Amino acid sequence: MGFVENIKKEKPKIHCLTNYVTINSVANILLAVGAKPIMADAIYEMQEITEITQGLMINIGTLHKDKLDAMFLAGKKANEQGNVIVLDPVGVGSSEFRTQAALGLLQEIKFDVIRGNISEIKTLAMGTKNQNGVDAGSLDKITDENIDENIEFVKKYALKMKTIVVVTGEIDLVTDGSICYVIKNGHSFMKLVSGTGCQLSALITASISCVQNNNIKAIAMIVCMMGIAGEIAFSKLEKHQGNASYAVYIMDAIYNMNSNLIEERALYEIR
Amino acid sequence: MGFVENIKKEKPKIHCLTNYVTINSVANILLAVGAKPIMADAIYEMQEITEITQGLMINIGTLHKDKLDAMFLAGKKANEQGNVIVLDPVGVGSSEFRTQAALGLLQEIKFDVIRGNISEIKTLAMGTKNQNGVDAGSLDKITDENIDENIEFVKKYALKMKTIVVVTGEIDLVTDGSICYVIKNGHSFMKLVSGTGCQLSALITASISCVQNNNIKAIAMIVCMMGIAGEIAFSKLEKHQGNASYAVYIMDAIYNMNSNLIEERALYEIR
Amino acid sequence: MGFVENIKKEKPKIHCLTNYVTINSVANILLAVGAKPIMADAIYEMQEITEITQGLMINIGTLHKDKLDAMFLAGKKANEQGNVIVLDPVGVGSSEFRTQAALGLLQEIKFDVIRGNISEIKTLAMGTKNQNGVDAGSLDKITDENIDENIEFVKKYALKMKTIVVVTGEIDLVTDGSICYVIKNGHSFMKLVSGTGCQLSALITASISCVQNNNIKAIAMIVCMMGIAGEIAFSKLEKHQGNASYAVYIMDAIYNMNSNLIEERALYEIR
Repeated sequence: MGFVENIKKEKPKIHCLTNYVTINSVANILLAVGAKPIMADAIYEMQEITEITQGLMINIGTLHKDKLDAMFLAGKKANEQGNVIVLDPVGVGSSEFRTQAALGLLQEIKFDVIRGNISEIKTLAMGTKNQNGVDAGSLDKITDENIDENIEFVKKYALKMKTIVVVTGEIDLVTDGSICYVIKNGHSFMKLVSGTGCQLSALITASISCVQNNNIKAIAMIVCMMGIAGEIAFSKLEKHQGNASYAVYIMDAIYNMNSNLIEERALYEIR
Repeated sequence: MGFVENIKKEKPKIHCLTNYVTINSVANILLAVGAKPIMADAIYEMQEITEITQGLMINIGTLHKDKLDAMFLAGKKANEQGNVIVLDPVGVGSSEFRTQAALGLLQEIKFDVIRGNISEIKTLAMGTKNQNGVDAGSLDKITDENIDENIEFVKKYALKMKTIVVVTGEIDLVTDGSICYVIKNGHSFMKLVSGTGCQLSALITASISCVQNNNIKAIAMIVCMMGIAGEIAFSKLEKHQGNASYAVYIMDAIYNMNSNLIEERALYEIR
Repeated sequence: MGFVENIKKEKPKIHCLTNYVTINSVANILLAVGAKPIMADAIYEMQEITEITQGLMINIGTLHKDKLDAMFLAGKKANEQGNVIVLDPVGVGSSEFRTQAALGLLQEIKFDVIRGNISEIKTLAMGTKNQNGVDAGSLDKITDENIDENIEFVKKYALKMKTIVVVTGEIDLVTDGSICYVIKNGHSFMKLVSGTGCQLSALITASISCVQNNNIKAIAMIVCMMGIAGEIAFSKLEKHQGNASYAVYIMDAIYNMNSNLIEERALYEIR
């Protein structure tokens, strides 16, 4: 059975501690792929919600002190219980509060995957200031020219953190420190939809919460899947349609995804 | 005049104290049916907002201490003023905090309707632990086989609480303790859209806020309406579309609903 | 270059302190027009987020004490830095808390634009109680009959506040106190979509954050643009579609907008 089919079969319950800008589209993309979203963020509930869920997605958009406390509680409990955890360090580096929050979380909680754009990952690795809000800075952009050094950098960070690092952008990188998937699926139009990154983090969480999907290949394939959904959605877009229709088509494409289609359309090399 | 037309004519202002996952789709479904949503949740505003509204929907998703305080204030004021109130106990039983919150609200506030899935209603009635997050547990599921005992159970709970109880799932039950509507409208695809339950709770609130709609028949018909919208939406769904298009079609169907259509398509028996 | 093209070229980063009902559609409409939304609202982040953004939109929907504190911090910093600021006083007058919040913000922060419906603007100007929640009261409605006195009233308020005032409704007014654009674009269906007003406030912020767009003509044209988007969206609407499809079509229309189209379709006179 393919890894997408596996999610639909296991229906993992995924606890999301996430921003309230894209929380609805995160919940619905989890439903699209066959997982069950639970979006509780009160500190009083973290123990019990962790007990009934299989995976945790922590996303630091619209972060507040209370929610950060809840993240520490949920993350530690998830670690104890052996649940998978994914960190989405949205906008890290755009404020000291977010940077310290992300670094603190990384210190006290063991994450299975960290997914961000290259500027966010550089901020985490090197403490650089990030002037770009939630988008990657143009100077940081991964291109065919600078890809070697970026692969080396990301591998080193993955090794140091003992985790899988997923960097998304025009070129995506997925590495465990030893090998690196270089992925070229996706469409530039995806940047016009708020939350496609958050959605991908949730999909990764859902995938690795399933017994047979907890490996770098499965994670790379989920990254391909999101990109393929962006490609399919773009092919449906008619003249006079724009980013609102596109957002609908991305989610519809995820709903209709299957492992064979992903294998066929995945564009990657292993480095 | 039918009860849907009555909502469009009276345009009741509905105060929603609800979760921020589905708050946007709740606001828009109220607009679709002709009501006016007001989504304030600061404690300072509860008195005055209640004064200018006709109905209150309390939904305990993404609950926090502050919002719970606001719920008590708004609920008591709404009771004083004679406004209708609907409780949507989302995810009750998945944490002690939510369970105590829901039970506390039920103790201090008189609700006109409680709407939940069968696991949520059982938690309220019996204090059972709910391991299922926001979905009904499969053991609890209402089927043709166990329907008699479920009707009896729900009637008893409605009598005890002196309220109307609405249980939604594949089979919906609407009872005042004396009679029970058993409703079979709807489509299994609705589970793939986050917030269709929250939307139904808001629609019930809007309906019973209107002078002539405050009776069990009108509530049962609103439950039928939501199911019919799910059926119509499914019939519009093309190959390659998924839950995102479906969510759009459900709301569009509610916008185009009328009482005659509901009478024609309603699938129910009275027990 | 037209003002819409200017936004797409300059890609201004827009900081939104806004309600969580419509925050997702505000973020996406900014992306549609070519701007970059940043939706942070923790007090700890206000200084730094202001430093990396060019415009600030303050919207008092779902207001809380904490968020209000953040608004004061961000607004003062934005004033210091010379960033543009737009106030959207959603629902002002429906509670003393919101009224005092809006009046306090207006006292301590210099806004470039205030955008609201006529009831909201009257509340700000005269301290009247607003019984209408987030919609304009029918008594306040601007019509061809009362337009002269409304223009005079709004001009006077703009002069007093030394700001541009935008009043939206069936007839829109845009004035700096000296001249007043009277705009008749738009469609009544727009009232059935939660957040079209919030979206317009964000679009105005994005526009005037660009170097050449900070003038009353450009602001009036953005108001026309939103109305034109509503007209285009309505023309796409098929039988059996409703407010959910309509919301998608409005954003799609904004994505496809250009200055020539706006010049062609803009319906206004200057008074």
